[in-house]
Amino acid sequence: MRVNPQDPRPHGRAVRVQQAVHAAVRSLQAEHGRQSLTVPKIAALAGVAPSTIYRRWGDLNQLLADVAVARMRPQGPPDTGTVRGDLTAWAEEYLEESASPTGREFLRDMVAGGADCSSALRGGEYARARIGIMLERARHRGEDVPDLEDVIDLVLAPIVYRILFEPGKLPPDAARRLTDRLFERDA
Amino acid sequence: MRVNPQDPRPHGRAVRVQQAVHAAVRSLQAEHGRQSLTVPKIAALAGVAPSTIYRRWGDLNQLLADVAVARMRPQGPPDTGTVRGDLTAWAEEYLEESASPTGREFLRDMVAGGADCSSALRGGEYARARIGIMLERARHRGEDVPDLEDVIDLVLAPIVYRILFEPGKLPPDAARRLTDRLFERDA
Repeated sequence: MRVNPQDPRPHGRAVRVQQAVHAAVRSLQAEHGRQSLTVPKIAALAGVAPSTIYRRWGDLNQLLADVAVARMRPQGPPDTGTVRGDLTAWAEEYLEESASPTGREFLRDMVAGGADCSSALRGGEYARARIGIMLERARHRGEDVPDLEDVIDLVLAPIVYRILFEPGKLPPDAARRLTDRLFERDA
Repeated sequence: MRVNPQDPRPHGRAVRVQQAVHAAVRSLQAEHGRQSLTVPKIAALAGVAPSTIYRRWGDLNQLLADVAVARMRPQGPPDTGTVRGDLTAWAEEYLEESASPTGREFLRDMVAGGADCSSALRGGEYARARIGIMLERARHRGEDVPDLEDVIDLVLAPIVYRILFEPGKLPPDAARRLTDRLFERDA
């Protein structure tokens, strides 16, 4: 197999297509709302053929799921100096971002995309990795840290469940209350 | 306004259409899988016009969400004699039903259906009502019962989160472990 490192085009072009299509989705969604999104409109704004979108993403649901996953913050998780501070700040930030109508739509797209569950799985992996970073950092500082599975069950799961199935019923202090419970069990 | 109790047709017909369409969805899904479902195929099998389906359900996603909600058990929740026994049996049953590929698809349809979140909200209300029945029954027996919100946060939410975002990672004893935690906190 010949590899030509001088020719970055295919990769560069794939990245440019993805960036243009994602930007078009975000822009149309912000201006006209989710209901108005269609593949031809997105393709026109992104300057690509609709067939490019269908070939790469399959359908609109899968494209929206991909945008939802990509939207998750590229920055590291909060770094406050203690694991309890980090997890509380992270839970508050997660709740604030996801409880808005747009945040809820992103969560929903992640669940609805692809029959193979790949976008929901990536979302789950991503959340698990962020929590893992905070716990690992605290372990290096010599702190006692809660179990990763308990953080998922006791803090992340109730926030996500309520956003998806009982929107509007999340009290503003929910993130802090759930994190407090995680640490009070261990005390 | 005139009401003619002798003429149950509109209501009766609406019910018959719903039953025929729901049955067609379940049958096509069981035979050919979810990916093969289209409104024209469902309409043909149910013996109605596709326009009847579009008028009543909006689109395929919303119809699937409606079938998913209707599938939730019409029977009462488990009745074992103690609130801990009831909640454990209910959590085990819920996990078993929802963790299968079909169960996961139903949960996903409930989340994905309708932009107004109505099917997810109905799913959330339904789960809340079932838990409420078990708690109320135990209160009448004079038992100490856990808080409804705690049952949702500590038992239901982790099961639903893991089915949606980490399928395949649910250990078989998860339902019992989560219910044990709910009661051990209160001990």
